[in-house]
Amino acid sequence: MKRIAIDMDDVLADITTRLIEITNERRNTNYQKDQLKDPVIFQEYYAEYKQIRACLYETGMFRNLPVFEDAQDVVKKLQEQYEVFIVSAATEFPKSLTEKLEWLEEHFPTIGWQHTVFCGHKHMIKADYLIDDHEKNLVKFEGTPLLFDAPHNYHLEGYQRVYSWKEIEGLLLPQ
Amino acid sequence: MKRIAIDMDDVLADITTRLIEITNERRNTNYQKDQLKDPVIFQEYYAEYKQIRACLYETGMFRNLPVFEDAQDVVKKLQEQYEVFIVSAATEFPKSLTEKLEWLEEHFPTIGWQHTVFCGHKHMIKADYLIDDHEKNLVKFEGTPLLFDAPHNYHLEGYQRVYSWKEIEGLLLPQ
Repeated sequence: MKRIAIDMDDVLADITTRLIEITNERRNTNYQKDQLKDPVIFQEYYAEYKQIRACLYETGMFRNLPVFEDAQDVVKKLQEQYEVFIVSAATEFPKSLTEKLEWLEEHFPTIGWQHTVFCGHKHMIKADYLIDDHEKNLVKFEGTPLLFDAPHNYHLEGYQRVYSWKEIEGLLLPQ
Repeated sequence: MKRIAIDMDDVLADITTRLIEITNERRNTNYQKDQLKDPVIFQEYYAEYKQIRACLYETGMFRNLPVFEDAQDVVKKLQEQYEVFIVSAATEFPKSLTEKLEWLEEHFPTIGWQHTVFCGHKHMIKADYLIDDHEKNLVKFEGTPLLFDAPHNYHLEGYQRVYSWKEIEGLLLPQ
């Protein structure tokens, strides 16, 4: 059975939407997610975001993030044909750990603690596929990397980019 | 650089000593760690331990465990010649996660969150060595498994057994 490693933030959990909300609240800005596809606007937003990045260490930050469309349905289907691990670079944020466990239990109850991995680096994870939004994780991966599209990775080239969970379904579960 | 994955409980952190204390307190018994080398006494103890195993889910359980002798010194030396990851099957115990991070920061500050892994299964970890006390983790490991001696693994055969961190130093850092 082939193995898939799936990142959480900006792959299963739409943290960017929440970070835009927090940026707008705390920096008195008015960014919308769609605007961030424009690299110039993204860079402006990112400068503001860096001022509020410390919110990632706050209690509650990771517990109530929205789930990406179709992620629950497709992950469940993937589990029928692959060994699926959730691999989240979470150890940087101590308070995120139990919140992420609870979030997974709520939205992806078929994963279970056995297939949940919280780490820093990911290059010691052995899998056939890694679905992730960050180059630092994909670049050293020895299987097939899939770049999940996100505003902050618009500039990355050389990776197969996926835009939605439906697209992942078509790619990894062809009819 | 070769990579070593090191388990926490009963390899770096002497959780058995603490579990014996809790068993004695709550089951009104009087076991000493040395006695548990005797398989008959171990089985008696283990029946009592199972009655208090739920303590693993309690707050504070993992924060103040004693460190194994020489572990700090040898891990630091290993880091000079290997990439060292701490890999703990901790996601079963949600409250353990931040406590384990704090414990590592206190006793092994050179590891850092980047090289800390909390997981369930460990068979997706790619490394050259795995130092662990449980067969379930060692049996599927594709590198060289090293069995850290513990009362509960006395019956295991077919693994290279190590009894102390000084012995690991001699094995992995030969002069």
